[in-house]
Amino acid sequence: MTATSQSDLSVVALAGGVGGARLVDGLDRALPTGSLTAVVNTGDDFQHWGLHISPDLDTVMYTLAGLSPEDRGWGIEGDTFRVLEEARRRGAEDWFQLGDRDLVTHLSRSAALARGDSLTQATSGLCSALGVECPILPMADAPCPTTIVTQGGDELAFQEWLVHARAAPAVRAVRHEGAARATQAVLDALTAADLVLISPSNPYVSIGPILALTGVADALRQTIAVAVSPILGGKAVKGPLATMIQEIDGCTPSAEAVARHYEGFLDGFAVHPGDGFDAPYPILETNILIQSKRDRVVFARELIEFSRSLR
Amino acid sequence: MTATSQSDLSVVALAGGVGGARLVDGLDRALPTGSLTAVVNTGDDFQHWGLHISPDLDTVMYTLAGLSPEDRGWGIEGDTFRVLEEARRRGAEDWFQLGDRDLVTHLSRSAALARGDSLTQATSGLCSALGVECPILPMADAPCPTTIVTQGGDELAFQEWLVHARAAPAVRAVRHEGAARATQAVLDALTAADLVLISPSNPYVSIGPILALTGVADALRQTIAVAVSPILGGKAVKGPLATMIQEIDGCTPSAEAVARHYEGFLDGFAVHPGDGFDAPYPILETNILIQSKRDRVVFARELIEFSRSLR
Repeated sequence: MTATSQSDLSVVALAGGVGGARLVDGLDRALPTGSLTAVVNTGDDFQHWGLHISPDLDTVMYTLAGLSPEDRGWGIEGDTFRVLEEARRRGAEDWFQLGDRDLVTHLSRSAALARGDSLTQATSGLCSALGVECPILPMADAPCPTTIVTQGGDELAFQEWLVHARAAPAVRAVRHEGAARATQAVLDALTAADLVLISPSNPYVSIGPILALTGVADALRQTIAVAVSPILGGKAVKGPLATMIQEIDGCTPSAEAVARHYEGFLDGFAVHPGDGFDAPYPILETNILIQSKRDRVVFARELIEFSRSLR
Repeated sequence: MTATSQSDLSVVALAGGVGGARLVDGLDRALPTGSLTAVVNTGDDFQHWGLHISPDLDTVMYTLAGLSPEDRGWGIEGDTFRVLEEARRRGAEDWFQLGDRDLVTHLSRSAALARGDSLTQATSGLCSALGVECPILPMADAPCPTTIVTQGGDELAFQEWLVHARAAPAVRAVRHEGAARATQAVLDALTAADLVLISPSNPYVSIGPILALTGVADALRQTIAVAVSPILGGKAVKGPLATMIQEIDGCTPSAEAVARHYEGFLDGFAVHPGDGFDAPYPILETNILIQSKRDRVVFARELIEFSRSLR
């Protein structure tokens, strides 16, 4: 990292769902406008009701727009479900909860893609309409679906497994398919970055798909890369991560178990108090539970200061 | 028409929007199950929010399902507009009123078409889900858009003219484009029909597109065809028809002016009391204002009796 002032620091955050969205939100509040770019997992993207759904892009976008509910990791606060209720009444698939306001996002995105816009362009249009200024870049424009291979040998699309099957089937492996290349916008942002932050998101299904794209890991080796643990005191803040660590890696869930996924390009790691471990890079032990907006900003400032101290 | 009992009479109704839907509803109540098939104009179909909208198919389907509002010619009674309100908030196109429950129709149809279903199959699926038993056949599976040529020389897609421009630009001509062929299901239904009823719909933009398809006019010449006037006492019950008769045909709006559009295959014509005219076929003068469900059935029975008397 060059010795710039905080105001001209160029930061990229790699993000998945809720944890990623909260870190991005904290950084967006802590950093001056124009400093931050979010690069977001699209491995969860899928088609539902004929629409293109991008769950992680939406969670990050809604969080930055101030529309995310406090008590759940998806959709828009106070949304209604009139369309879903009618779909259910008519016997349509209703396992994925699409709110009425939320639906406008999927309709707009699908229409933009059908017109020939890239997912990057469609996302930019959605962000503009919601007043989100921080660039949110999908990791890829082409589909690159994450497949869950269960212990039983079934292969499920990620949302089918997470939402429809309620993450119940034990996981043997996670496979990243389709597009192998990050967008040029993502590679340019990574190349220009003074600092890349890896959000407290699931390393298998949120960060893994981004790192699997050609060019991303190489770019991370060229810059300062700092990760934030999604495991606190052996537990995941949200979602199926703790179980996945046991099932896939066969080890006890811990910050250290997550850090192993980022070996080779990590310059620092942030963990919750008591979660520190021996590592070839500095560890920041601090409150990384960032549910409230205040905690997000406090932690983002600490994380930036910590990252600036790394060479 | 063969001398069958009413119970094994095979009736096809050609229908456009509200007038057509009301006649079909009356016939559906008056005739035994299995006797009636509705053939519906798809010249109004268009893409909006990336979805395939079929206004006339929906009006007929919602009317038969008992979902149509009494006081307007589109959508579902008591529907809400949460999605539309959010779309408006985000600056999306909002000139076409899509209700939340209504939206499920357009989502399902668009998803079915994207999967490779024909419009006929998609419509059948929608009807099943809404408990509509009477077959509703789109006139064509391929797009065949109706274009309005204005007196000013502009060319507007039909809904753009009717809804977006509020039917204000004076009309010079109506053009039927695209698919020139009715579906095989439509041609089969017409061939098998003892009686074809032409609904009190707009002859230029509702019935005209059906008659313009190869095979339809020929089939009508082979059977008993009876039309119902959409003009009562010189006025249209609904919509821009009276003005269109003046603008396009340069004559005073009347039942007779409408009948001229069906010359060559008409075996009878139903008009409102006082609207009779000299014609080479019998005229039924009766109450053809069929807004209430009761009036629809009374008129449908009269119309069938009248048609059965024709040879």
